[in-house]
Amino acid sequence: MDSTYFFADDGTLNATGLVTGFNELKQVVEDNVSGLDTMFVLVSGYMVFLMQCGFAMLTAGSVRTKNTKNVLLKNILDACVGAIAYYLFGWAFAYGGDSKINGFIGSGNFALSASSEGDFDDFTGFFFQWAFAATAATIVSGSVAERTSFYAYISYAFFLTAFVYPVVSHWVWGGGFLSNIFGHGMIDFAGCSVVHMVGGFAGLAGAAIVGPRYGRFNAEGKPVPMPGHSATLCTLGTFMLWFGWYGFNPGSALGISGGAYTVVARCAVTTTIAAAAGGITTLVLKKVMDHIFDLLAVLNGILAGLVAITACCAFVEVWAAVIIGAIGAAFPIHGAVGFWGALCSGIFNSKTYQAAAGLPDQQGGFVMDISEWKLFASNLVGCIIIVCWVLVLIVPFFFALNVMGLLRISESEELIGNDISKHGGPAYPNDPVGELEETNVSDSLAMDPDSSKHVDEV
Amino acid sequence: MDSTYFFADDGTLNATGLVTGFNELKQVVEDNVSGLDTMFVLVSGYMVFLMQCGFAMLTAGSVRTKNTKNVLLKNILDACVGAIAYYLFGWAFAYGGDSKINGFIGSGNFALSASSEGDFDDFTGFFFQWAFAATAATIVSGSVAERTSFYAYISYAFFLTAFVYPVVSHWVWGGGFLSNIFGHGMIDFAGCSVVHMVGGFAGLAGAAIVGPRYGRFNAEGKPVPMPGHSATLCTLGTFMLWFGWYGFNPGSALGISGGAYTVVARCAVTTTIAAAAGGITTLVLKKVMDHIFDLLAVLNGILAGLVAITACCAFVEVWAAVIIGAIGAAFPIHGAVGFWGALCSGIFNSKTYQAAAGLPDQQGGFVMDISEWKLFASNLVGCIIIVCWVLVLIVPFFFALNVMGLLRISESEELIGNDISKHGGPAYPNDPVGELEETNVSDSLAMDPDSSKHVDEV
Amino acid sequence: MDSTYFFADDGTLNATGLVTGFNELKQVVEDNVSGLDTMFVLVSGYMVFLMQCGFAMLTAGSVRTKNTKNVLLKNILDACVGAIAYYLFGWAFAYGGDSKINGFIGSGNFALSASSEGDFDDFTGFFFQWAFAATAATIVSGSVAERTSFYAYISYAFFLTAFVYPVVSHWVWGGGFLSNIFGHGMIDFAGCSVVHMVGGFAGLAGAAIVGPRYGRFNAEGKPVPMPGHSATLCTLGTFMLWFGWYGFNPGSALGISGGAYTVVARCAVTTTIAAAAGGITTLVLKKVMDHIFDLLAVLNGILAGLVAITACCAFVEVWAAVIIGAIGAAFPIHGAVGFWGALCSGIFNSKTYQAAAGLPDQQGGFVMDISEWKLFASNLVGCIIIVCWVLVLIVPFFFALNVMGLLRISESEELIGNDISKHGGPAYPNDPVGELEETNVSDSLAMDPDSSKHVDEV
Repeated sequence: MDSTYFFADDGTLNATGLVTGFNELKQVVEDNVSGLDTMFVLVSGYMVFLMQCGFAMLTAGSVRTKNTKNVLLKNILDACVGAIAYYLFGWAFAYGGDSKINGFIGSGNFALSASSEGDFDDFTGFFFQWAFAATAATIVSGSVAERTSFYAYISYAFFLTAFVYPVVSHWVWGGGFLSNIFGHGMIDFAGCSVVHMVGGFAGLAGAAIVGPRYGRFNAEGKPVPMPGHSATLCTLGTFMLWFGWYGFNPGSALGISGGAYTVVARCAVTTTIAAAAGGITTLVLKKVMDHIFDLLAVLNGILAGLVAITACCAFVEVWAAVIIGAIGAAFPIHGAVGFWGALCSGIFNSKTYQAAAGLPDQQGGFVMDISEWKLFASNLVGCIIIVCWVLVLIVPFFFALNVMGLLRISESEELIGNDISKHGGPAYPNDPVGELEETNVSDSLAMDPDSSKHVDEV
Repeated sequence: MDSTYFFADDGTLNATGLVTGFNELKQVVEDNVSGLDTMFVLVSGYMVFLMQCGFAMLTAGSVRTKNTKNVLLKNILDACVGAIAYYLFGWAFAYGGDSKINGFIGSGNFALSASSEGDFDDFTGFFFQWAFAATAATIVSGSVAERTSFYAYISYAFFLTAFVYPVVSHWVWGGGFLSNIFGHGMIDFAGCSVVHMVGGFAGLAGAAIVGPRYGRFNAEGKPVPMPGHSATLCTLGTFMLWFGWYGFNPGSALGISGGAYTVVARCAVTTTIAAAAGGITTLVLKKVMDHIFDLLAVLNGILAGLVAITACCAFVEVWAAVIIGAIGAAFPIHGAVGFWGALCSGIFNSKTYQAAAGLPDQQGGFVMDISEWKLFASNLVGCIIIVCWVLVLIVPFFFALNVMGLLRISESEELIGNDISKHGGPAYPNDPVGELEETNVSDSLAMDPDSSKHVDEV
Repeated sequence: MDSTYFFADDGTLNATGLVTGFNELKQVVEDNVSGLDTMFVLVSGYMVFLMQCGFAMLTAGSVRTKNTKNVLLKNILDACVGAIAYYLFGWAFAYGGDSKINGFIGSGNFALSASSEGDFDDFTGFFFQWAFAATAATIVSGSVAERTSFYAYISYAFFLTAFVYPVVSHWVWGGGFLSNIFGHGMIDFAGCSVVHMVGGFAGLAGAAIVGPRYGRFNAEGKPVPMPGHSATLCTLGTFMLWFGWYGFNPGSALGISGGAYTVVARCAVTTTIAAAAGGITTLVLKKVMDHIFDLLAVLNGILAGLVAITACCAFVEVWAAVIIGAIGAAFPIHGAVGFWGALCSGIFNSKTYQAAAGLPDQQGGFVMDISEWKLFASNLVGCIIIVCWVLVLIVPFFFALNVMGLLRISESEELIGNDISKHGGPAYPNDPVGELEETNVSDSLAMDPDSSKHVDEV
C-alpha cells in the first residue's frame, strides 16, 4: 500500500482512507483468529474422535476371540448413537442457548435449533463436545464386555450421551453450579471428573449389576484368568489413545489465539510426562510383585497416567506431572484415577499458570501455597456430587434393564460368544480358533439342553 | 511501538513511518493467512492420505487370508503409482497452467514444470489433489480383489490417476465445462461425483469384466459366503476412513481464512451426523431383515453415509445430513451412493450457506426452494456425463487387458491365493491357517495336473 | 472501528488513539503468529509421536509370534523412557539454556529448570524434540529384536535419548560445531544424520555385538528365513510411519509463519515423491531378481525413500526427489540410507530454496552448481564424525553389558520366546499357534536339561 491511500495529494491526511485501511486489516486479523481457533479445536476434536478407534482396538484386544465383533460394534455405535443423542439432546442440556438461566441444566438448541439467543452457530464447539461425550460413553464398553446385552448397551450409550454426561458438563464447564461452588468453583481443565469419572463410575455400576463373566471365578471363588485375544490390538489402541489425548488435553484450551499457545504447549508436555511416568511405574511395580515385564499392565499404567493429568495438565509444573502420573498408575480402576486426577488440581495447580489461562482469581493447589484449600475442597465436593449423580441415575437404569431381562445375555450365548450368537459369525472366519470355539460350544450346548432356548434372546 | 514511530518531535505526523508500519503489519497478516491456509490444507491432506491406510485395512480384512498381502500391496501401490502418475500427468490434466484455454482438459505443468503462467508453486494444492486422486484409485481395489492380476491393477491405477480422474476433476473443479453447465454449473463440494463415482463405477466395470471369484456361486447359481478374514481389520479401517473424512470434507474448503471457518465447521458436523445416521440405519435394517446385529453392514452403512454427504456437506442443514446419510446407507454399491450424494446437493443445499462459501449466485436444492431446479439438473446431467466418461474409458481398458490375458489370474493361482503364488508366502507365516491353505492348495493342484502350468503367470 | 477513535471531534488526529489502536492490533497479530507456529509444531510433533505406533506395529509384524509382546513393550517404553530421559537430561545437552558457550554440548535447563537465560518456556520445542529423540531410539528395536535382554534395551534407550542423540542434535541443530564446520556448516533439514544415522548405526553396532538369532543360519552358514508373523501389521506400521513423516519433515521448518509455508509445502511434496519412488524401485528390483511382487520389500523401499529425502526435503526440486528416493531404496540398511540422504543435500540442494528457508549464504549441491562443494564436504565429514561418535559410545556400552551377562537372553528363553519367558504369556492367548509354540518349547527344553536353568534370568 503506498502512501496515497492515507494521504491526499497535498500531503494532508486522508482520514477515511486511514480508518478504512485499518478496519479492513483488522477484519482480516479477526478472521485469522477465528480460523486459527476453529482449526485448533477441530483438529483436536478429530484426534479425540480417533480415540474411539483406540478404545475399540484396546477393548477388542482385551476380550476373547468369540466376542470381538460384539465389542467392536458396541464401540463404533458409541460414536454413532452418541452423535445422534448429543445432536438431539446432549448439546441442549450442556450448553443450550438459554443455559445460563439455572445452574442445573441447559435448555434450548435441541437438535441444534435456533433459540432466543439466535441461530445455532457453534458447530466447532458442538463437534468437540460430541467427541468428548462419545469418549465418556465408550469408557464403559470394556467394563461390561462379553456378557451385556446389545440393547442394554445401546440404551445406556444413548442415556449417557443425551443426559447423564451433558448435565455434568453443564455443571462444571457450562456455567452450572459446580463452576461456582463455595464461591470458588471446580477446576477440571479437560475432564477427569466430567468425562473419566462419569464413564468410569457408570462402568463400575454396570459391571457390579451385570455380574462377572461366566467362569470368571472358580469353585473356590478364585479368579480364573481370561486373557484378551490380542496384546497387539491392545498396544495399537493404547498408542492411538495416547495420540488422541493430545487432542483431548491441549484441545481443551478451546483456542490457541491470544496467549493460549503457552497453555496448549504446557498441556502437551505434562500429558507426555504423566503418561511416561505411569507406564514406567507400572513396569516396575509388576516386575517387583509378579516378576514379569507386563505389557498389558504398562499399557494400563500409561492410560492411568493420561487420565490422572487430564484435570490439571494446563496448570502444573512438569515435575508434578511425574508424581501425578506415577501415583495415578497405582490406582486399580478408571473411575478412581479420574477422582485422583481431579483432586490433583487442588494439590498441584499453580496460580501463575491458572492466571495465564484466564483464571486469575482462583486459588491454586495446597502444595503450591499451603494456605489455599478452596480449590481442593471445591473439586473434592464436586467429585462426590458427580459420583452420586452418576450412580443415582445409572444404578436404577441398569437395575430396571435387569428386571426386564434385558441386561445380560444368556449363559449359553455367553459360552458360544456374542459373535456367533448375535453377530452372524466369528470375527476371524478363516481362523481355526473360531471353529474350535464353535465346536466346543456345540458340545457344551449339547450337554445343557436348557440353554439352547435362550439362544434367540436379546 | 511508541508514538515517535508515527510522529515527529514537533507532533506532526510522520507519514512515511505510518505507512511503513502499516505495510509491515499487513505483510505479517498476509503471511498469517497463507500459513493458516497452507497448514489447514496440508493437515487435511495428511488425513486424506491416512485414508489409504484405512482402505488397506478395510480391504485386507474383507478378503480371505490367502490374498492378504496381495490386497495390501495393491493398496500401498495406489499411493505410490498415483503419486508418480499425478506428478507427471495428473496435475497437468486437472489444473495445469494453461488450463483455462478449454473446458475439457488442462495442460502445462507436466511434472510440475514451469508453464506460460510461471514457475509451478502450488505445492500445497498438488499435495491435497494427489491424496484425492489416490483415494479415487484405491476405491477399486476392493471391487476386483482376490482374482485380478497385479499388472492389470497397476496399469489401471496409473491410467486412473494420470488421466481418467484428473479430467473429471478439471471439468468440475478446474474451471471445465461442468463447472458452468446450463449456465449454472455442478456443485460437488468434496467429490461425490468426482472421486467416489469415478472410483465406484470404475470398480463396478472392472468387477463385471473380471467376473466373480472362483467358487463365489454354487452349482445352482446361489452365492456362497466368502467372509473376509478379519472383522477387526475392517473396523480399524473404517475408523481410519471416518477420521480421514474430516480431512476430505472440511478440507475441501481449501482454506480456513476469511470467513471459511464457518464452512469448515459445518462440514465437520454434517459429516459426523451423516456417518452416524448411515451406521444406525444399517444396524436396524439388517436386524429387521436378517435378525443379526451385523458389524460389517454397520461399517458399510457408515461409509455410505460419509460418501453420501460428501457433495453437500458444506451447504446443508444438520437435519438434512440425517436424511442424506440414512438413505445413502440403503444403497448397495459405492458408485450409487456417490450418485445419490451428488444429487443431494440439488435437493438439500441452502443458498445461504452456498453464499457464505462464496457461491452467492447459484441456486440451491429444490427442497429448500421449490422454484429452484437448476442445481439438481446440473448435477444430474453432470453425473451422467461422468459415468459415461468413466465407462467409455475403463470398459475398453479392462477388455483389452482381458484379450491380452493380463486381466485375471489363473484358477489355480486363485485357489492357492495370490500371497503364495505371487508374493512369496502367506501374510501370517506362523499361522497354521496359512499352512492349512497351502496344504489344501497342494492337494488341489495334485488333483488338477493342468493347473500347475499357470502358476508362474502374471 | 469508526473514525472517532483516531480523530477528535474537530477532525484533528488523535495521536494516542492511533498508536494504541495500531499496537493493539499488532499484539493480536503477533499472538496469531505464535499460535499458528505453536499449533504447526505441536501437530507435527503429535504426528511424529504416532510414528512410535507405526514402528511398534512394523516391528511387531516383523518378529515371530512368540516375541510379539516383547517388541511391543520395548517400543512403548522407548517413548516412556525417552520422555523421562529427555526431560531430565536430553534437552539440557541439546538445547540447554547456556548452550552457546561451547560447540560440543548444551548445559542448563536440566529437568526443564530455570537457567541463567531465564525460566524455561519452550514447551513446544521440547515436545517436538522429544518426539524426535524417541524416534532415534526406537529405530534400534528392530535391529536387535527377539534376543536382546530387556534390561539391556531399556538401558540403551535411556543412554541414547539422554546423551548420545542430544549431543549430536546440539552439534548440527543447536549451534554446535558441525553447524559451522569448514566455515560453512552441515545442512540436515529434518535429520538424516542426526536421527536416522544415529539410530541406524547404534542398531547396527547392537546387532553385531548381540549376534544373530538362534537358528538364523544353518549348518552350512546359509541364512534360514525367519519371517515375521504378520505382513498386515507391517503394512499398517508403514502407512503410519509415512503419515508421521509429514510431521517429521515439513514439521522441521519449526514454524509456518512468515514465508515458511512455501518451505513446508515443498517438504510435503518431495517427501511423498521420494516415498513413492522408493516403493516402486523396490517392487521392480525384487520382481526382476526374485520373481515375486514382494510386499515387505516395497514397505522397506518406501521407508528408505522417506529416510533418504529427510535431509534435503525442503531444498530440492521434485525430480530430484525421484532420484533420491529411488537410489535410497537400493541401500540395504537403515544407517546407510541415512548417510546417502545426508549426502543428497550436498548433491541436489538448490540455493534458491535454501535462501527461501533462511539460509541465503550457504552453498548448494554440486549437481545444481558444479562449483559448489562446501556443503557436500561439510555433510560428508559431519556424517563421519557422527558415525564415529555413535560407535565410540555404543560399542563399549553394548560390550560392557555383554561382559556383565546382561546383553542377551539365554538360548532356552530365545527358543521359548520372550513373551512366555519374560512377559507372562503369549500375545494371542486364544490362538493355537501360541500353544503349539509353547509345546514345542517344552519339548526342546526337555531335550536340553541345561537350558532350563537360564529361564529365570534377565
